[in-house]
Amino acid sequence: MNAARMSAVLLAEVRERRPLVHNITNLVVQNFTANILLAVGASPVMAHAPEEVEEMARAANSLVLNIGTLDESQLKSMALAAAAACDEGRPVILDPVGAGATKMRTQAALSLLERFRVAVVRCNPGEAASLLGQSGHTRGVESRTSGDQMQLARELARRFRVTAAVTGPEDAVCGSDSAFVVRNGHPLLQRVTGTGCAATAVVAAFCAAASPEQRTLAVAGALAYFGLAAERAASRAGSPGSFAVALLDELAAIQPQDLEAGAKVTAE
Amino acid sequence: MNAARMSAVLLAEVRERRPLVHNITNLVVQNFTANILLAVGASPVMAHAPEEVEEMARAANSLVLNIGTLDESQLKSMALAAAAACDEGRPVILDPVGAGATKMRTQAALSLLERFRVAVVRCNPGEAASLLGQSGHTRGVESRTSGDQMQLARELARRFRVTAAVTGPEDAVCGSDSAFVVRNGHPLLQRVTGTGCAATAVVAAFCAAASPEQRTLAVAGALAYFGLAAERAASRAGSPGSFAVALLDELAAIQPQDLEAGAKVTAE
Amino acid sequence: MNAARMSAVLLAEVRERRPLVHNITNLVVQNFTANILLAVGASPVMAHAPEEVEEMARAANSLVLNIGTLDESQLKSMALAAAAACDEGRPVILDPVGAGATKMRTQAALSLLERFRVAVVRCNPGEAASLLGQSGHTRGVESRTSGDQMQLARELARRFRVTAAVTGPEDAVCGSDSAFVVRNGHPLLQRVTGTGCAATAVVAAFCAAASPEQRTLAVAGALAYFGLAAERAASRAGSPGSFAVALLDELAAIQPQDLEAGAKVTAE
Repeated sequence: MNAARMSAVLLAEVRERRPLVHNITNLVVQNFTANILLAVGASPVMAHAPEEVEEMARAANSLVLNIGTLDESQLKSMALAAAAACDEGRPVILDPVGAGATKMRTQAALSLLERFRVAVVRCNPGEAASLLGQSGHTRGVESRTSGDQMQLARELARRFRVTAAVTGPEDAVCGSDSAFVVRNGHPLLQRVTGTGCAATAVVAAFCAAASPEQRTLAVAGALAYFGLAAERAASRAGSPGSFAVALLDELAAIQPQDLEAGAKVTAE
Repeated sequence: MNAARMSAVLLAEVRERRPLVHNITNLVVQNFTANILLAVGASPVMAHAPEEVEEMARAANSLVLNIGTLDESQLKSMALAAAAACDEGRPVILDPVGAGATKMRTQAALSLLERFRVAVVRCNPGEAASLLGQSGHTRGVESRTSGDQMQLARELARRFRVTAAVTGPEDAVCGSDSAFVVRNGHPLLQRVTGTGCAATAVVAAFCAAASPEQRTLAVAGALAYFGLAAERAASRAGSPGSFAVALLDELAAIQPQDLEAGAKVTAE
Repeated sequence: MNAARMSAVLLAEVRERRPLVHNITNLVVQNFTANILLAVGASPVMAHAPEEVEEMARAANSLVLNIGTLDESQLKSMALAAAAACDEGRPVILDPVGAGATKMRTQAALSLLERFRVAVVRCNPGEAASLLGQSGHTRGVESRTSGDQMQLARELARRFRVTAAVTGPEDAVCGSDSAFVVRNGHPLLQRVTGTGCAATAVVAAFCAAASPEQRTLAVAGALAYFGLAAERAASRAGSPGSFAVALLDELAAIQPQDLEAGAKVTAE
C-alpha cells in the first residue's frame, strides 16, 4: 500500500474511532485547536490542572504538549500528564513552540524530551536547530529556514528517539525506520496564527488512530491531509480571515478518497 | 401568552437592557463566548482575579461559572464571585463542563451547587448523570445520551433546587413550577467547540433580563433562540468553520418576531 | 508630507520590517490579536511567564500591556517586561481595559503608568476618565462617551507624558508636540469583542516601525488604517461574525496607496 493510500486509511480510522486528544496547549490556540480537531473528526479536550491532568491523559487516546505560552505551573502539569500518557502507552506529541526564542522554552522542550518517551516532535526548522544546539536564532515563535529540513528531522529522530516532523514549504518526517517528504500546503498558512499548532493536533489525532508501527506514516499522512485542506481552502479564500474559516471547512469536507488522490507523500 | 411569544418578549428585553454578563469560563471559549453575547445584544465581561471578581459580579446582571478548564485558583474566584452575585440577587448560571470526566470536575460542580444558590444549570445528559451520581462515563467534555433528558432535568431541578436544562438533540428544561421541551437546534452545533458554553451564556443573558418568576421560561426561550440561530446558520453554511461564523451573524439578525415564529417550545 | 501620506509610508515600513510585537494581553483576545498582527504584516508573540518575559521583550520591537483579564501574576510579568522594553528603548503600549470597572484595574493601569515610561495609551473615553480620576463609571469593559475625547487625550498626554489615543466614533490622538483626529471606523466594531485591543496591537506595530519623533502620527496612522479596514469590511459583511472575518481580510488587503487615499486624519 503506498503512502497516499495509507494516509486515506488512517483518516478513515480517525473518523471511525473519533479519538480523544488531550491538549495542554498555549492560550493563543485553545479555541482554534479544538475546532481543528472537531473538523478532523476527533474529540478534543483541554485540561491543565495538576489535580486532573493525569486522569484526563489516561482517558485520552493521545496527548499534545505545546509550550507556546508556557509557565512553570503548566510545565508541571505537562510532566504529570506525560507520565500518565506514557504509562498507558498513549502517544505524546510535542510542539516546542518558540524553542530558541527564550532559554525557558528551549530548556522546557529539552527537559520534556529527556524525561518522557515522547512519540513525535512537530516543529519548524529554527526550533529543530535550537533543540539540537545548533546556532541560529528563533525570532518570536517564527523561525528562519535553516538548511536541510530532512537533515534536521533525521538528527532530531536519532538524538531524541522520536518521530520528527520539521515543517515548512515542504515537510520532512523521519522515524526510526522510514522517512517521508510531504509536499502539500500553502503559503497562507503563515498568515494565520496557530496553524503549526493545528498541524500538531492533527498529527496527534492520526497517531491516536494508528499503531506504533504505523507512526511515521501517520505523521506524514496527517501533514498531507492538513496541507491538502490548506490548498483547497486557498483555492476559494485568498485572504487570511476567510482562509482560516475555509481551512476548518475543508478539513471536515475531505474524504479518504480525496486524500488518497491529493496527498503528495514520497518515501525518502 | 404562549412560550414562543414570551421568548420573543425576553429577547426584546435583552436587546433593550443590554445586560452585563460576567463570565468566569474556560480558556477555549473566552473569545467565542464574548462574541456570542455581543451578537445577542448583551454586554460580556470576563474577570477572574480574586481581587476583582466580587466587584465585577456585583456590577453585572448575571454570572456564568463554566468549569471547562478549571484549576484551583479559578475555583476560588468562582466561589468569591458566586457569593457576591447571590448577595446581590443576581442569577448564577453553572455550566459543569466535563463533570464525570474527572473527579475534580464532578466535585467542583457539586461543591458550587451545594455552597451557592445557583439559579440555572445547563449541561448535557452525561454531565447531568454524573452530578446525580448515576453510573455512566463522560468522555472528555462530550457525553453519551443516557436515557430521558427530561427525567435528568427533573432530578437535577429537585436535587439542587435549580432550573435545569439538559440539552441535546432536544432540550429539556425544568424549574420548580414548570417544564419545557425545546426542539430547535442543528447537528452542526456538535462540530464547533464551545457551542454548549455559548448556549449557557445566552441563557445567562436571558436570565439577566427576566424576573425570577420567568426564569424557567427564560431558559427555554434562550435555548430556542440559540437553536433557531443554528438552524438558520446551517441553512446557508454547511461546514463547521462557516457555520460558526454564520451562527454569530444569525444571533444578531434574529428579531423578536422571528423568534416568535420559529421557537419550538412546548410546555410539558 | 500630509498625515495620510505619512500613514501610508508607515504601513509600508511595517510590511517591510515585519516588527515583532510582544503581547501580554487578556485571555479573550489572544488569538484575535495574533491574527490581527499577522494580517497587518507584523509578527506577534505572546509570552507571560516571569522567567521569559524580559528576554522576549528585549527581542521584540514593541510591547503591548493589556489588562483585560488581569491577575497578580500577570501584573508582575508586565512589570518585568516593561522594564526590559524600556531599557532597550522599545515602545510600550498600554491598553487599560476596564479601568474604572474595578479598583484593581484602575490601580494596575495607574501603577504601570507611574512606574514605567509608557509610550502610548489607547483607551476609550470611560477608561480615560477613570485614569484621570474623573467621575463616571465604566460598565464592564465598555464605557459611555463622556465629553470631549480630545480633551481627555490632551489630559492623559500631559498627566502621564504619553501619546494618548482616546477612541470612539472618532479617535482623538494627542502627543507632546501634535494632535490628530481620525474619522475612520465603523459601528460594527462595537459588535465584535477585542476590536479595541486589536486597534492597540496595530498601534504597537506602527510604533515599532516608526521613530520616536513620528510616534503621534504613527498612532493616528495605525487607527486610520484599522478604521479603514473596518469600513471596507462592513461594506461587504454587515453582520458581526462575517465582519470579524472580513476585517482580517481587509487589514491584509489594504496597500499603502489605499491607506493614503482612505485615511481621514486631520491635525488639530
